[in-house]
Amino acid sequence: MAKDLKEKFCSFSPTDYRYSVEDLKSYLTEEAFIKYKTKVEAALVKVLAKQGFISWEVAEEIIQAAERITAEEVYEEERRVRHDIRALVNCIRNKVSERAKPYVHLFATSCDIVDTANCLRYKDAIHNVILPDMIELEKTWMELALRHKDTLQIGRTHGQHAEPITFGFAIVLYVDRWGNRILRLKEVTHNLVGKFSGAVGAYNASSLGFFADPEEFEREVLSELGLEPANISTQILPPEPMVDFFHTIISSFGVLANFADDMRHLQRSEIAEIGEEFKDEQVGSSTMPHKRNPINFENIKSMWKTFMPKMVTIYMDQISEHQRDLTNSCSQRYLPELLVAFTSSMRRMIKVSKRIKVEESNMQRNFKMSKDKIAAEPLYILLASLGYPNAHEYVRRLVFESFKKRKPLSEIVMEEEALKPYLEKFTDLQKGIILDPSRYIGIAPKKVKKIIDLWEERLKDT
Amino acid sequence: MAKDLKEKFCSFSPTDYRYSVEDLKSYLTEEAFIKYKTKVEAALVKVLAKQGFISWEVAEEIIQAAERITAEEVYEEERRVRHDIRALVNCIRNKVSERAKPYVHLFATSCDIVDTANCLRYKDAIHNVILPDMIELEKTWMELALRHKDTLQIGRTHGQHAEPITFGFAIVLYVDRWGNRILRLKEVTHNLVGKFSGAVGAYNASSLGFFADPEEFEREVLSELGLEPANISTQILPPEPMVDFFHTIISSFGVLANFADDMRHLQRSEIAEIGEEFKDEQVGSSTMPHKRNPINFENIKSMWKTFMPKMVTIYMDQISEHQRDLTNSCSQRYLPELLVAFTSSMRRMIKVSKRIKVEESNMQRNFKMSKDKIAAEPLYILLASLGYPNAHEYVRRLVFESFKKRKPLSEIVMEEEALKPYLEKFTDLQKGIILDPSRYIGIAPKKVKKIIDLWEERLKDT
Amino acid sequence: MAKDLKEKFCSFSPTDYRYSVEDLKSYLTEEAFIKYKTKVEAALVKVLAKQGFISWEVAEEIIQAAERITAEEVYEEERRVRHDIRALVNCIRNKVSERAKPYVHLFATSCDIVDTANCLRYKDAIHNVILPDMIELEKTWMELALRHKDTLQIGRTHGQHAEPITFGFAIVLYVDRWGNRILRLKEVTHNLVGKFSGAVGAYNASSLGFFADPEEFEREVLSELGLEPANISTQILPPEPMVDFFHTIISSFGVLANFADDMRHLQRSEIAEIGEEFKDEQVGSSTMPHKRNPINFENIKSMWKTFMPKMVTIYMDQISEHQRDLTNSCSQRYLPELLVAFTSSMRRMIKVSKRIKVEESNMQRNFKMSKDKIAAEPLYILLASLGYPNAHEYVRRLVFESFKKRKPLSEIVMEEEALKPYLEKFTDLQKGIILDPSRYIGIAPKKVKKIIDLWEERLKDT
Amino acid sequence: MAKDLKEKFCSFSPTDYRYSVEDLKSYLTEEAFIKYKTKVEAALVKVLAKQGFISWEVAEEIIQAAERITAEEVYEEERRVRHDIRALVNCIRNKVSERAKPYVHLFATSCDIVDTANCLRYKDAIHNVILPDMIELEKTWMELALRHKDTLQIGRTHGQHAEPITFGFAIVLYVDRWGNRILRLKEVTHNLVGKFSGAVGAYNASSLGFFADPEEFEREVLSELGLEPANISTQILPPEPMVDFFHTIISSFGVLANFADDMRHLQRSEIAEIGEEFKDEQVGSSTMPHKRNPINFENIKSMWKTFMPKMVTIYMDQISEHQRDLTNSCSQRYLPELLVAFTSSMRRMIKVSKRIKVEESNMQRNFKMSKDKIAAEPLYILLASLGYPNAHEYVRRLVFESFKKRKPLSEIVMEEEALKPYLEKFTDLQKGIILDPSRYIGIAPKKVKKIIDLWEERLKDT
Repeated sequence: MAKDLKEKFCSFSPTDYRYSVEDLKSYLTEEAFIKYKTKVEAALVKVLAKQGFISWEVAEEIIQAAERITAEEVYEEERRVRHDIRALVNCIRNKVSERAKPYVHLFATSCDIVDTANCLRYKDAIHNVILPDMIELEKTWMELALRHKDTLQIGRTHGQHAEPITFGFAIVLYVDRWGNRILRLKEVTHNLVGKFSGAVGAYNASSLGFFADPEEFEREVLSELGLEPANISTQILPPEPMVDFFHTIISSFGVLANFADDMRHLQRSEIAEIGEEFKDEQVGSSTMPHKRNPINFENIKSMWKTFMPKMVTIYMDQISEHQRDLTNSCSQRYLPELLVAFTSSMRRMIKVSKRIKVEESNMQRNFKMSKDKIAAEPLYILLASLGYPNAHEYVRRLVFESFKKRKPLSEIVMEEEALKPYLEKFTDLQKGIILDPSRYIGIAPKKVKKIIDLWEERLKDT
Repeated sequence: MAKDLKEKFCSFSPTDYRYSVEDLKSYLTEEAFIKYKTKVEAALVKVLAKQGFISWEVAEEIIQAAERITAEEVYEEERRVRHDIRALVNCIRNKVSERAKPYVHLFATSCDIVDTANCLRYKDAIHNVILPDMIELEKTWMELALRHKDTLQIGRTHGQHAEPITFGFAIVLYVDRWGNRILRLKEVTHNLVGKFSGAVGAYNASSLGFFADPEEFEREVLSELGLEPANISTQILPPEPMVDFFHTIISSFGVLANFADDMRHLQRSEIAEIGEEFKDEQVGSSTMPHKRNPINFENIKSMWKTFMPKMVTIYMDQISEHQRDLTNSCSQRYLPELLVAFTSSMRRMIKVSKRIKVEESNMQRNFKMSKDKIAAEPLYILLASLGYPNAHEYVRRLVFESFKKRKPLSEIVMEEEALKPYLEKFTDLQKGIILDPSRYIGIAPKKVKKIIDLWEERLKDT
Repeated sequence: MAKDLKEKFCSFSPTDYRYSVEDLKSYLTEEAFIKYKTKVEAALVKVLAKQGFISWEVAEEIIQAAERITAEEVYEEERRVRHDIRALVNCIRNKVSERAKPYVHLFATSCDIVDTANCLRYKDAIHNVILPDMIELEKTWMELALRHKDTLQIGRTHGQHAEPITFGFAIVLYVDRWGNRILRLKEVTHNLVGKFSGAVGAYNASSLGFFADPEEFEREVLSELGLEPANISTQILPPEPMVDFFHTIISSFGVLANFADDMRHLQRSEIAEIGEEFKDEQVGSSTMPHKRNPINFENIKSMWKTFMPKMVTIYMDQISEHQRDLTNSCSQRYLPELLVAFTSSMRRMIKVSKRIKVEESNMQRNFKMSKDKIAAEPLYILLASLGYPNAHEYVRRLVFESFKKRKPLSEIVMEEEALKPYLEKFTDLQKGIILDPSRYIGIAPKKVKKIIDLWEERLKDT
Repeated sequence: MAKDLKEKFCSFSPTDYRYSVEDLKSYLTEEAFIKYKTKVEAALVKVLAKQGFISWEVAEEIIQAAERITAEEVYEEERRVRHDIRALVNCIRNKVSERAKPYVHLFATSCDIVDTANCLRYKDAIHNVILPDMIELEKTWMELALRHKDTLQIGRTHGQHAEPITFGFAIVLYVDRWGNRILRLKEVTHNLVGKFSGAVGAYNASSLGFFADPEEFEREVLSELGLEPANISTQILPPEPMVDFFHTIISSFGVLANFADDMRHLQRSEIAEIGEEFKDEQVGSSTMPHKRNPINFENIKSMWKTFMPKMVTIYMDQISEHQRDLTNSCSQRYLPELLVAFTSSMRRMIKVSKRIKVEESNMQRNFKMSKDKIAAEPLYILLASLGYPNAHEYVRRLVFESFKKRKPLSEIVMEEEALKPYLEKFTDLQKGIILDPSRYIGIAPKKVKKIIDLWEERLKDT
């Protein structure tokens, strides 16, 4: 353990010592990748046995050998043969009898194994770790929104006070955006497919007369792993399903970043509408003992800045010359890290969202700063609705006057003779809003409820 | 006309003088944008009249005024009021009677108009221009693939000769990738929605008591335009549907870029497997009269390099503080250009794909270079299938020998005593392939047919 | 004029109708580009005449013809010959006598003209427009900083109140960063070079025996234009000088974006430390007549988001296969727009920086919010300097107490018996700071003066 | 060792198991970072002792404690206090006597340590590892260029045969581009500066009366580490020097990528102008025993695709709100990896450049393919130089004829009656080139020599 720890800090990538996600190790480390590749090799011999091409004994021998492969031995062999999949194959071969050796990896090309293994492990990581986490965050935000569905907050556009909403309404927007990403991620993950079409994708090797239908053979191997085949492939899979997949991860990351930015700003000293509960021993600053910094939200934003541009790499990797060039090989090896970073930030978001402290009194205080001016919009609309000719311009002037005279807008309104005939026509609801703009929140609380119901329904089978 | 032309060259952006797409002007220029915004204003008063809030006369007056708005007058007014939508509204107001004035833009916030207009014009551009073009390219590639479904070509990986395919097989991969993008684009375009929820998205203004259900009011306004509303919005629409939309455009652009790269390289002097039919008067180089350059494919790749990174802007624009900051405003104004650039490149691709000249004799010549070595893969597989212990390694050595002795691999194979017992067990098909590797094309021609059938079926209602 | 206006709105790119910079048209439009290319053609014949290769009459004829070339005719000819430089050459040839025709463009390859013309016009745009504007912004910020060198402001880290500074100190940081970019831009602009080395860069054509030293010939042609040649080139210039140049533009844009973000946030309703003076007629919102939005700063941030990712294109264009592929051609045509956008945003920044209204009373108010807690840092340091064993932790606890008891930190400090012996050792300056933390501004005002002096000195010859 | 190996494969980032650079571990791992931070803490107390603020015994105690700090203990402490620098400080404090404790980290803010430590370790990594490697690559390319300064190769533009060069000329372009990057990197590394200006950059803490001149104090601390201070800073350093630094790394990476692409394409089966010497045991493909893939060049291109887009992160991190927000914190932690990846690829490039096998006979063969057409350019120029009216167009037609009639251009030229009077005026050199275009290589060999001399001179002190 001490040893493990020490190793960690000899790492270059923070994903390996600071933002690691333990639960993803069985899918996304190099070791895990090798395990997944052996699963594909095992699936192959299983089908060869089913088809009677090899005996079940031979198949069993290979399957068991594949299960015992370690990353270390593969890397050691790779140093010799300079080819990662040939190294893996050699390691399996070294563990089986002479009669089994020839059937290891037979009919397969490297990418049949690599692309299929990637597809498989990404799907597993999504279904076993990432989607459950996404659902948990969705629920956390639902609870937060519901708890504050009626908590008055000033809405802000351009960083300026605009019209009132409720805090729950502000949060439930993220429930909707995040729910939308969850469904999208399920869909694009579902679209990931495997391949077993050989070195240039034309099933050359599997058309040597051993199988009635090479496409059927591909379908069987992949179905052992729970996968569908691509319609067509070259040496590698067509990139678009993977591109869509990572786009969905990155655009989900964007939702986290936006939420983080909103919360960071609501934590500004002058705004102070939310806080994060601090541990007693936590230090805000190495020299300023009084600081309470939104470090978790800052961290999430920073991780997004680190990983969002990776999409450029992914788009560049859409281009592979002819039946494939290998310039997508290293770059593809760096993709699992993106899933780890996303999960790490998402888990941080779950944790910190659970301990958001809403400072309702500060929300009230901030609202009151602009309370008076807020009446401007409904006033203009009500006047216009009654046919007042230039209501927007007129109200804008009243607001200026209110600024200059430092007099509440409502007072100025009441003193305007010209307005009286209009004001008399206002309904009680309308008058009430002009006098108490905290009632000018539209359908905010109702919408909170509705959006939560909508996503509970849509995600109930997830 | 001379005037127009002159103006064009006073432009800074090549999209406005060199890569322009005439057919997209009615959707994606600034003038078109203003037209679309007036459509939304018109939809609003139509619904106000339907609901009996205003008379049909008033509504008609506004609708007709809206239709007569020009970009020039809006820009002139904007110079005065410094607000684009207020300027538009003023222009409409200036064209109607006093009694109609108050009802222009009533209940709407700028973004209700802007976001809805963008959604609408992008949908129109996609359905009327871009999707039809995509279908045309799909068909062009289908024809090319079908025409060459049996044309032997050496498959290439790492730029090296690998196993044989057919040229149609290489092309039909793009039929599949492009078809996939077409379906995806239809889907993400379908997901674009509008909004009419007011300044902070809580329907504050439309909850002033004039409408029974503000969400129903929103739905009606949008349905005048054939749009659905977002589940929830702030001042602006949730960004993800637009982000998915542009991701699909950019990933489609990537398919064009990949095709272009493949063709560029097949045109290399030494490879020369395809050519582009040149006009008699076309000049290849200003000093080298003999050059025949793949400028169209280079152009497409270059446009992709220009516009692909715009996705970074789009991801950054996912983040908008609170109910909205305005830092996505200019950046959003630059998005239509991306659709124009994509369409411009796609049309170039259609044109050039139609005049691709396949040099079958050069394909034959190139194939022959490696003909001999190609037998290595099937040989290794056949030997292994017969239980030969270390077939891959063994064949690799034979290939080395063939290189060193400059002797055909097949000859070396025939001379190997140790191989005889194995060779005798080969079927006729298998022997045929070893002796004539041009037969080692797997199911390439069959796959061409199958993929074309698949996409003809899937796209038949498009 | 009305015509021009109309044309403008038929544009797709906002750079051509909304964010245009009139002063840059003579360098960066397509028309200007063609003018610059003709200058290079003229320089060539001038040198041919100087060397006695052609007569001065012939040279003059060509020079005068080159000056009369219009973009329209070149584009019309290009439609025929499909090659932009050949079209330009033909247009010049059509304007000269038979005996002059052969000498137009002789020894030149397209890229000798294109790359050299780009280099030249970028240099001109920088020296005549962009650098003077940068200097103006620098001076504007210097004045603002100097005016507020003593204006107390709370410093903010993590959006939280930290230690006090002065507003001038906050601004002068940008004076330093911007000054640094100015010097850098001068340097990288100076490093831009031209070329006249022919179709593959080996001076093949100019080594046909007409010139004693082809490199000397190149040097002379370029020196007509005030340029130096590259050490070596292929068909095109080595990309790095241009890459460094655009990096400097983009990183300068980043300084603008950071300044804009700072100001945006200082304009938040709750902070309100600065404002922008509004025109009387300006409209803040189409529905909320009371809004005063930081639209100029938002605009600058948004433009940065639009153009910053273009660096990805520029990095991709560093790669050109062998002696050149043409996949950098279109992309390069889009680079002038980046300079226009940068200048447009810089000019907006100058304008808005000149009318920043500093709300000193709000700065005081905000400072007071945290005044009490600010003493924590100097207190901890003073205690530690006197050997207090765990001062940081101890003061952190006092701050917690102050929060919980809602009692000023200073009071709590005074009541602590344990602290007395330490407090007595404080100097007057130190006591003064603990009692009045508004004095805890370090050397902020002095630094303002020093940095301004530094940059006045460094930029005095610019 | 087995343990270490095992750990490695539990990594997510390939930089930690596959593309690691042992020599950079002492600068760029997390462990190294902590070491560097302790160096800054040590420099601080050294200066405190020099100034007589603390005794040398106390300083020594702290310096020795700092040297014994391990990453493990810091991380363990961080888990408790949730602040990385406070954790580090606590660890040092725990190792010193009571009387020394208060003086650890006194007057410093976290970023004084972090930013200075980063600057220091990057400088060390550059000077001790990266620059020496860059020089080695430069020399490797110089040797390759010199060896082949006269080796005839066809120059290629658009992937098409253009005019002849020599292979050394093609390589020496990279000598120039790389040399330019070396000088640039030295310069931008030199520009990296440190800071010791406190929590908001105004030297608040160091102005408490203990030091005569806080800026002088900063200068002394940094000079202990061999660093200069920034002109001005906030909590953090102004970002531009670091942005320039990483731009230079990334643009250097671009040079590697371009070289790699050139070599990849020269290795295409049909071109085969260069090869990489293979180890006997190396496997080219897991199923195709005959393949010899340019995997090293592909790898370098792929690494560039992976890391180039990180520049977007770096540009985003230029923006930090007010005196600093923390959203650049994680992202900055990922920057060392970029240096590792660059070095890893550079070392691969050195290795593979040393074993490039030039296939001169294939270069000859490829040249001969176009030999005949190459005469077109010099012919057109010579005719034009003699006043032939429309030489370019005329020669273009002759080339067409040569294509159609499958007759050498030279033959066609000789048969043209109209040309005779011109041909007679050609000098011997000129005739020689038309008859043997392999002589049409301009000054290629001379330029090779000249560029090598230039860079040997410029880099001799490096």
